[in-house]
Amino acid sequence: MTEQPLSGLYRPSLTLLTDLYQLTMAYGYWRQGMQDREAVFHLYFRKAPFQGGYAVAAGLAYAVDWLENLRFSEDDLTYLGSLRGSKGQPLFEQGFLDYLRELRFTCDVDAVAEGTVVFGNEPLLRIQGPLIQAQLVETALLTLVNFQTLIATKAARIREAVGPNDQILEFGLRRAQGFDGGLSATRAAYLGGADGTSNVLAGQQFGIPVRGTHAHSWVMAFEGEEEAFEKYAAAFPDDSVFLVDTYDTLEGVRNAIKVAERLRAEGHELGGIRLDSGDLTYLSVQARKLLDEAGFPKVRIVASNDLDEQLVTALKLEGARIDTWGIGTKLVTAYDQPALGGVYKLAAMKKEDGSGWQYSIKLSEQIAKTSIPGILQVRRFFGPDGKPVADMLYNTAESLPEQLTIVDPLDATRRRPVQSSEFRELLEPVFRQGRRVLELPTLAESRQKARQEVTALDPSIRRFLNPHTYPVGLEKGLHDFRTQLILEHRPQRPA
Amino acid sequence: MTEQPLSGLYRPSLTLLTDLYQLTMAYGYWRQGMQDREAVFHLYFRKAPFQGGYAVAAGLAYAVDWLENLRFSEDDLTYLGSLRGSKGQPLFEQGFLDYLRELRFTCDVDAVAEGTVVFGNEPLLRIQGPLIQAQLVETALLTLVNFQTLIATKAARIREAVGPNDQILEFGLRRAQGFDGGLSATRAAYLGGADGTSNVLAGQQFGIPVRGTHAHSWVMAFEGEEEAFEKYAAAFPDDSVFLVDTYDTLEGVRNAIKVAERLRAEGHELGGIRLDSGDLTYLSVQARKLLDEAGFPKVRIVASNDLDEQLVTALKLEGARIDTWGIGTKLVTAYDQPALGGVYKLAAMKKEDGSGWQYSIKLSEQIAKTSIPGILQVRRFFGPDGKPVADMLYNTAESLPEQLTIVDPLDATRRRPVQSSEFRELLEPVFRQGRRVLELPTLAESRQKARQEVTALDPSIRRFLNPHTYPVGLEKGLHDFRTQLILEHRPQRPA
Repeated sequence: MTEQPLSGLYRPSLTLLTDLYQLTMAYGYWRQGMQDREAVFHLYFRKAPFQGGYAVAAGLAYAVDWLENLRFSEDDLTYLGSLRGSKGQPLFEQGFLDYLRELRFTCDVDAVAEGTVVFGNEPLLRIQGPLIQAQLVETALLTLVNFQTLIATKAARIREAVGPNDQILEFGLRRAQGFDGGLSATRAAYLGGADGTSNVLAGQQFGIPVRGTHAHSWVMAFEGEEEAFEKYAAAFPDDSVFLVDTYDTLEGVRNAIKVAERLRAEGHELGGIRLDSGDLTYLSVQARKLLDEAGFPKVRIVASNDLDEQLVTALKLEGARIDTWGIGTKLVTAYDQPALGGVYKLAAMKKEDGSGWQYSIKLSEQIAKTSIPGILQVRRFFGPDGKPVADMLYNTAESLPEQLTIVDPLDATRRRPVQSSEFRELLEPVFRQGRRVLELPTLAESRQKARQEVTALDPSIRRFLNPHTYPVGLEKGLHDFRTQLILEHRPQRPA
Repeated sequence: MTEQPLSGLYRPSLTLLTDLYQLTMAYGYWRQGMQDREAVFHLYFRKAPFQGGYAVAAGLAYAVDWLENLRFSEDDLTYLGSLRGSKGQPLFEQGFLDYLRELRFTCDVDAVAEGTVVFGNEPLLRIQGPLIQAQLVETALLTLVNFQTLIATKAARIREAVGPNDQILEFGLRRAQGFDGGLSATRAAYLGGADGTSNVLAGQQFGIPVRGTHAHSWVMAFEGEEEAFEKYAAAFPDDSVFLVDTYDTLEGVRNAIKVAERLRAEGHELGGIRLDSGDLTYLSVQARKLLDEAGFPKVRIVASNDLDEQLVTALKLEGARIDTWGIGTKLVTAYDQPALGGVYKLAAMKKEDGSGWQYSIKLSEQIAKTSIPGILQVRRFFGPDGKPVADMLYNTAESLPEQLTIVDPLDATRRRPVQSSEFRELLEPVFRQGRRVLELPTLAESRQKARQEVTALDPSIRRFLNPHTYPVGLEKGLHDFRTQLILEHRPQRPA
């Protein structure tokens, strides 16, 4: 226990970033001698967020970092040794703690690259290796990948609303969910389509361009608004954006123009003005008019105030004259759906005698929540124009037939023969036996990939309202096998 | 820039956890020689979250930790020195970076203790000191206090729904917003009313009781469900809770009972079963019946599946037989309102000649968003039964009249003379000239305080739907002064 909840985190291990049940299960497997049985898990979500048609994968760099540092420190083991059961007995025996001390990550990991467009049911990560390890990493992988995928997707949608030319600045740190809810949100927002951030730590950590101007308090700290602008411009003659709504927005624009004129006389140009309240359509149109009439057509109008993709779309339709969109709370918290329901499911285990795979399935009353067995890969097919046409999940442990057919996992009567011969496998090797084998792309590369992949989608899939469903199916052999497994496991009750 | 986004955080400074504009303003103040002008800022929210009647203050321990470690490291300064303006010039001159290198926190901080019930417009923190410092800390304080106050409030509401006797376990880490969105959410959830968590890192960091059993994957890793339960019980004969819905819930309950009988024969008792899907009312009633009939009335029923205070209330009304509530996503993300709109506003500055205070106000078209000037304190009055009856905001720099009157800030015609003589001042000294002067309470103490404070509120204020508004007013002198200040600042346009 610490009185320093933040600085206490500067410690050599985040291995305990997990649910207790991962450790109680680990103990159970260890006691059964099952710790090294080879197992395969998949991490996936079932439905794209925001009622949208797609998601943008993100968070892998965090996941890789966490896995590479997976190691129980002495502090961790001391803590685990201090846990007690209901009768006051130690929860874990010493031999298990000794086992954890020596534990090193030796799994294979295959993952979808950050920035890839992904759909429901597609594994973003596949973990294959000793059961105890592959299970232990569940919580951290979900935490790190769920959230960043959510935010990258939100940012991609906001980019769609804003269009390719306007700037998006992410301003959300103050309303973020904890400091890393801010830091990792900024990273994912940039990956998904933002151009810059106000978050200085994210600038330093990830090289994201940082932007910022002044707050209302700056204006309030001076006798009058014009003086406040004047003094700010003295510090940043070539990089000033004046916040004009502390007292009265259009009065603020007029004060900004006065200072802009004096700046120009000294050889500098005002960068922009910022609107942070009120009717952004009306005010931006009026502000544009005032600026243009005064000879400042290049002064940018920055707007912020609880914006998201729906509001941006509405403002654009209404003719708002906004050049830079400051997006905060609604982006970094994914306000209208603040969690992605990613799950992590066991899909196969090596048989006890090592003679092959035994497949696992988690049933549910809803077929949509029933898991998919196998050692899965996702194959994305492309049409003659290079655009993706369908994705196929298949079991890499089985051979594929000549003629491929994909079956909709939610409606087995919807089947498509695969005609395209152009394809890409989405899951690529990241770890082999615990060693990293993939050089991660830079954040800028992942960001570029995200934009390319989203714009390659058909507009019907990209739209916000009732998007078309991109075809994701099970390879027919996998579908048939899964159906058989469901029937075997489901109790056959008489009607 | 780092390829180790998580382990890269093990660094001596989180000082850059801020918006760039705090630093550009700091530079501006420094250039104007205004850095040491004494200023007063308040951190507050305007409206209790979740359309509720109150909030539970939290996050102060994090804020204190951050402030105590406020220091620009050489890495930080190198990064800031690398920033460039639009013409390629350094954004900050070297003298400013040298100034930042020597900067130490020397402000006074007064704050509301964690676990205190608070209402809209009441300062949770008051920062008084050199303008440059008091401004610089804005973003981090907002991030840390906004989120934890939000989650503590959510947890308090869930505690209200669940009642005083059932257990609440927080299970949300996997869907949390980043790793600290999980860690600090767990802390705040415990503070607000949860009894335990699955989050092991939170257990270690904060001494919160950790709980957990097994996942579906445990069941899937064995030939059959009964065998899986059997093997789990072998590891935890006195601490097993079986997850019964991997294949068929009631079948699962029957398998749990078989194993419970064998456990009992060996002198152990099954702890509980867990339902994680389906109709929780129906299934819990059926499960209770099966367990009771089999002689296991003390086996607890744990339920989880996207629960929040509204669903818990519905399940309770329907007669669900649930003893322990596993609450995840909806709690740790505050799903229905994932951000608290806390703000940080300049309220006063010492006059340039040091001869007294000059008060500041931020106007808005909406009176609810107009700030409150002064060096504020919150006085809470209590009735003869010891229950709070009204809160009064007043300016500590002015003397109070004999007969106090409070005025509703949203409707100046609503006024109440104060009759009670029992009161408590909510803001207490935490830092004096940068030195901490308050021993922080333990998390357990803050948790107890939260429970006491919420239960002391009238039920009409605690209810979820259309709660009564607890009276929070401005002391009449403060109200009159604020009105005058608004009139002075607002442009008087002819009608």
